[in-house]
Amino acid sequence: MGMPLELNTMIVTKGREKRLDENYFSLVKEGYRLYPLDIPVEVKRTIDGDLNGTGIIKKVEWENNQTVIMYQLVALNSTN
Amino acid sequence: MGMPLELNTMIVTKGREKRLDENYFSLVKEGYRLYPLDIPVEVKRTIDGDLNGTGIIKKVEWENNQTVIMYQLVALNSTN
Amino acid sequence: MGMPLELNTMIVTKGREKRLDENYFSLVKEGYRLYPLDIPVEVKRTIDGDLNGTGIIKKVEWENNQTVIMYQLVALNSTN
Amino acid sequence: MGMPLELNTMIVTKGREKRLDENYFSLVKEGYRLYPLDIPVEVKRTIDGDLNGTGIIKKVEWENNQTVIMYQLVALNSTN
Repeated sequence: MGMPLELNTMIVTKGREKRLDENYFSLVKEGYRLYPLDIPVEVKRTIDGDLNGTGIIKKVEWENNQTVIMYQLVALNSTN
Repeated sequence: MGMPLELNTMIVTKGREKRLDENYFSLVKEGYRLYPLDIPVEVKRTIDGDLNGTGIIKKVEWENNQTVIMYQLVALNSTN
Repeated sequence: MGMPLELNTMIVTKGREKRLDENYFSLVKEGYRLYPLDIPVEVKRTIDGDLNGTGIIKKVEWENNQTVIMYQLVALNSTN
Repeated sequence: MGMPLELNTMIVTKGREKRLDENYFSLVKEGYRLYPLDIPVEVKRTIDGDLNGTGIIKKVEWENNQTVIMYQLVALNSTN
């Protein structure tokens, strides 16, 4: 028993984010993932990729073994 | 910094649950609370109260420093 | 990336606990497991088994993809 | 009830780290704090300070409402 979780410290989009509004995006991830809300985290396209920007996660939903996060992109790394 | 969390191992309703459907209820809690999903947990009206039943949490939402859980009541303790 | 965790709400010993002192036991589990400290949790020999007792986890150590818990057995279920 | 936790995504030393061995340090923090193990995290002297380096947490101990982490400093930011 027990509930499998994955502790995540950054957002890795793999290009699957959906724009909700100007700077707001949603992203669906498999499994239940624990993300920090309301504090700045790195946003990357791939785990080993360069930093793309900085985001703040505003909402996390867990259901049916999926995690949906809604985040605000607060800074973009223009050199990427 | 860091994100405050509270690890919860049971559902304490304080009578504030809302019935969504026959055996489905939602409950709003202050702060970000980590509950186990998809496994049976005790449902009580008060922390020190008797067991009211057993529930399975199907959905957890974190937003604006609040936690909303949606759970299915799978067993009721008739002696309460 | 991310760190796999398992949220545990009870202690399942599988008979592998080691007695440290009169009512104190240690137990090693594979993987990183998140247990609630300082609050009563069920202690069982097997997941589906009857309740053996109630314990309070006093210490949790994570290292090398193992979890070591130290708990105090505060109540025993004499019917087992 | 419930167990208060704080999810931490970086190590903030406040200069209180103790060197254990060449690149290994221990740090005591108040409360139970959830840190990611075995993956690189930022090490800073203050929350708002510049990056001091990168560390990998090898061990976490929770006891008596304190968290002790042991980490390896794997990169130092020489510009600090």
